[in-house]
Amino acid sequence: MSDSPELPLFRDPLLVINLGLPSFAGDLRDQGVSVVDPAWAPPAAGDPKAIAALAELLSWPQSARERIREANREAARRIVAAQPLVLRVRPAHEVVPGMHRKLVLHAGPPVTWERMCGPMRGGVIGALMLEGLASTPQEAEKLASSGEIEFSPCHHHASVGPMAGIMTASMPVWVIENQTFGNRAYCTLNEGLGKVLRYGAFSEEVLTRLRWMRDELGPALDRALVARGPLDLRSIIAQALQMGDEGHNRNRAGTSLVLRAIGPALIESDLPRDAVAQIFRFFDGNDHFFLNLTMPACKSAVDPISDLPFSTVISTMARNGTDFGVRLASLPEQWFTAEASLVDGLYLPGFSAADAARDIGDSVITETAGIGGFAMAAAPAIVRFVGGRASDALAFTSRMYEITVAEHDTYQIPALDFRGAPTGIDVVRVVESGILPVINTGIAHKDPGVGMVGAGLVRPPMSCFRDALVAFVDRFAERARADT
Amino acid sequence: MSDSPELPLFRDPLLVINLGLPSFAGDLRDQGVSVVDPAWAPPAAGDPKAIAALAELLSWPQSARERIREANREAARRIVAAQPLVLRVRPAHEVVPGMHRKLVLHAGPPVTWERMCGPMRGGVIGALMLEGLASTPQEAEKLASSGEIEFSPCHHHASVGPMAGIMTASMPVWVIENQTFGNRAYCTLNEGLGKVLRYGAFSEEVLTRLRWMRDELGPALDRALVARGPLDLRSIIAQALQMGDEGHNRNRAGTSLVLRAIGPALIESDLPRDAVAQIFRFFDGNDHFFLNLTMPACKSAVDPISDLPFSTVISTMARNGTDFGVRLASLPEQWFTAEASLVDGLYLPGFSAADAARDIGDSVITETAGIGGFAMAAAPAIVRFVGGRASDALAFTSRMYEITVAEHDTYQIPALDFRGAPTGIDVVRVVESGILPVINTGIAHKDPGVGMVGAGLVRPPMSCFRDALVAFVDRFAERARADT
Repeated sequence: MSDSPELPLFRDPLLVINLGLPSFAGDLRDQGVSVVDPAWAPPAAGDPKAIAALAELLSWPQSARERIREANREAARRIVAAQPLVLRVRPAHEVVPGMHRKLVLHAGPPVTWERMCGPMRGGVIGALMLEGLASTPQEAEKLASSGEIEFSPCHHHASVGPMAGIMTASMPVWVIENQTFGNRAYCTLNEGLGKVLRYGAFSEEVLTRLRWMRDELGPALDRALVARGPLDLRSIIAQALQMGDEGHNRNRAGTSLVLRAIGPALIESDLPRDAVAQIFRFFDGNDHFFLNLTMPACKSAVDPISDLPFSTVISTMARNGTDFGVRLASLPEQWFTAEASLVDGLYLPGFSAADAARDIGDSVITETAGIGGFAMAAAPAIVRFVGGRASDALAFTSRMYEITVAEHDTYQIPALDFRGAPTGIDVVRVVESGILPVINTGIAHKDPGVGMVGAGLVRPPMSCFRDALVAFVDRFAERARADT
Repeated sequence: MSDSPELPLFRDPLLVINLGLPSFAGDLRDQGVSVVDPAWAPPAAGDPKAIAALAELLSWPQSARERIREANREAARRIVAAQPLVLRVRPAHEVVPGMHRKLVLHAGPPVTWERMCGPMRGGVIGALMLEGLASTPQEAEKLASSGEIEFSPCHHHASVGPMAGIMTASMPVWVIENQTFGNRAYCTLNEGLGKVLRYGAFSEEVLTRLRWMRDELGPALDRALVARGPLDLRSIIAQALQMGDEGHNRNRAGTSLVLRAIGPALIESDLPRDAVAQIFRFFDGNDHFFLNLTMPACKSAVDPISDLPFSTVISTMARNGTDFGVRLASLPEQWFTAEASLVDGLYLPGFSAADAARDIGDSVITETAGIGGFAMAAAPAIVRFVGGRASDALAFTSRMYEITVAEHDTYQIPALDFRGAPTGIDVVRVVESGILPVINTGIAHKDPGVGMVGAGLVRPPMSCFRDALVAFVDRFAERARADT
């Protein structure tokens, strides 16, 4: 032992926690020093605009922050209290607010014909031909770009549409009523998978099916509903979550339960027997039939939170294949958009990521209301389908509790000991944590006229959440500061 | 420090692992000594007959022990390879081997009228009245005890019956064929819950339903099956396990999928529409309809292992409400029985454990083939119903891997990352480990004429497994020793 004085720092072995650049740790490691790299990330991934908005929020008086919490509790209370019933199936022009002959509703935030992605253009072409406004795809394209056709988001008309989400006047739509608040929501009937309008296909096969849905399936379902009375979607969704569905990409249980519920009334209707049998076969051949019921159920559940001042809960997420858009409960008129993401998915034989359109559709309304990807733990078969494990499904759902404000009292997840689904996405938590909503989705071909090419998971762009938060802070700062 | 010599045992603090009586540990703890109690139990819970049998097995030459393993692998291979199809619905007298007008088949091992429990007597009374052999319950009881009626286990006639399991000549039965081996199995149609024959009820309501099943439901299902072709039960059971069913106490998904599959053919049949609608309502009102298909599917899967010399795999578990019985693949003619257990369950309003019959029914064929309680992890809703947690369901299934010889390649459990269901119960492992098969079940009232009073979990008596093992060792010892 030496007698010379020595500082402990230079005498003892170093154990370093590196909060700096990774290269600092590398230099130390080269010298044989033990270095720990904490899994720390700055709030909002260091985005200066986001950090400024978060700092502004933190500077608000306690009373204003309590107003936000109270508004968010109210948002969650309303979403969870929703009691969606299926009342009827009627032609869109009869029931959808503002629908007219030259209006084409589409998925996602507003978009012009010029900016529309391939599958949405394909859907528009098919719909204009279905409506008799064009007789060839070329005529339809010309009409679509002429300015004579009005385009508007489904979401602006109390509606939602999967994938391209095209809805026109003659299409039969589910009429959903949220009994708790009296509001209604609408959605077309599901066409099945493969070559279908919502994936941008418009061949004769597609149009023939749509005509059959308009002339036979829609009226038959309507008569059955009138005969049996309304269907309780809250109960059916709750059951389906206990049967391996998550209500977005997996709907086998829900489809089965709806068929059981309306089967007797369909059989007792005055339809020819072969027509009834055809409807049953169509149901049995399309496990996604129920998707077009979970979507308006969720739309009807979330719409009552529109215009809740001070709430940071997200009232809409939707994509048009070009943009991903978000709206907040407290800023219902404003869309916050960013380029739609590419989907991380598996492809049907013969297709690859090079064929894929960007993320598209209003079906993310399911995640907005707490099911779909948020309830993935209820449907591990989906994760397995894309190469994951059941534990991944648990992890997806578990993370979503970190960005939501409530747990649903009726939509429960068996594998989490019947914990309620994570419900009510708080844009503050999304931006602060950097945790993006997890979304299940299908993948359309990027060109019009092709159809479905795959399915997978997608994370939306963070910037639209950040922009929503920034706008929220701008909009309410004055009232918040006056609140002391 | 003292200089006197000291043994470390008396100098250092003691840390004791107590392998002796619990009281030893108590004495030490009183003196402030740390004591660890290992969770050790003697093999076969110390049962001398079981230990002798296990010791005898261990003394067999390596070649004989390899013969056992090979026979068990073959048993598992056959069970897993089964491809049960639903072919038809026919009256029992047409298809069930040995069926005649004065034969009453019942659940479980053989039992005389004198030893029959209440609900089984109730089922016999109802069946004799249904067959027109008696016109009052009193007449039926007199006839049943007269010696004129032959009683025989369903299992002796390629059949299985839930609860009392009563099958008589005119009853319509599912005709299941295991395509892999060509053998058939039979089961009556499920009557629903509550006041039903299989729970011992025989009121006019019960008989009226049975007549409708005989005269309308059975023939209608048969015509639909002929029209559409056979139903693939292997596929439907596999799907149902991914939809929250375990195939014994929860069958909502399976019931829905069967209805989807045969719906169109039923609708296109020449039955009156209101009759078809009545059938749909009956299905929709009875989520246990599928139980009477999983049972014969499992029976058809397990029957091909009968008569596999040297196999210690269990080929039958069944209860008649008086005895629990077990058979082995290598001793197919012999039943090993013990008093049936009481069920640990929840009761319908107005009933309690004091009303309960003992464990009854052939439905434990589902556990024998690897589903039911063995696949509980697929159906956490059941555990929750009896007050448990999803993790309990995982634990039940996980333990069953310790007493089974294989994992099913098609019946998979989502929550266990799609691990195959634990299949093929090895009586050696049951006796050695003391782990009893976990069984889901309904509970009948102990008196004839009442019906269902609850549902729950039950563990069979260990002694019948021990007796089966002892008999196995006796039977094969000579050949085993000659095998060197």
